[in-house]
Amino acid sequence: MKDVVSDCSIESVMRVLSGRWPTLLLYYLKDGTKRFNELRRDNPTVSHRMLALELRKLAAAGIVRRIDHDGYPRRVDYELTEAGLRLVPLIDALGDWWEEVEVERKRAAGVRHAA
Amino acid sequence: MKDVVSDCSIESVMRVLSGRWPTLLLYYLKDGTKRFNELRRDNPTVSHRMLALELRKLAAAGIVRRIDHDGYPRRVDYELTEAGLRLVPLIDALGDWWEEVEVERKRAAGVRHAA
Repeated sequence: MKDVVSDCSIESVMRVLSGRWPTLLLYYLKDGTKRFNELRRDNPTVSHRMLALELRKLAAAGIVRRIDHDGYPRRVDYELTEAGLRLVPLIDALGDWWEEVEVERKRAAGVRHAA
Repeated sequence: MKDVVSDCSIESVMRVLSGRWPTLLLYYLKDGTKRFNELRRDNPTVSHRMLALELRKLAAAGIVRRIDHDGYPRRVDYELTEAGLRLVPLIDALGDWWEEVEVERKRAAGVRHAA
């Protein structure tokens, strides 16, 4: 964390990634293109409206690309952009960090128990 | 993003880091110990109660350490733990990623304008 400018970009990125769905959608899209309905099946607790809103937010941020296919029935696919693919390892690193800290937390709790 | 286990840890880490204050507090604590009142001065728009809650959440997650000094007037300091210090470059990487994407977004908007 270097200066106020980079701090602002951290605020912006946290605004986009905050909440449950952005990182889950990143996870479900990391292996390739998915249809809207497949994403709904992957996330059965998300409403149609919420999923559409989250995908629109990720598209506006340049993380997800929406592909409208011609024809009937209408078909809409979503995939990660290049920027979205570059984001995946950064989020993975946060998950790895969390798992390390979890181990340390448990060790600390064990020490307190033993004392 | 490897499997469902690491996906769960990503959900957990996003739950802790979501919102405006966690990453801002990380930023303000990265250079060393600060008193509660100094953190309030750094973040004049945060209420006393909200700051206390956010710091407690970060302490429970093992990111921040609270130091209670004896004596009067009572003095409480906060500092990043080892785990918190290791988190700083990961959040920095997200900020750098955002700035790169911003450049790409602007370039894409310029292309659309020129077309």
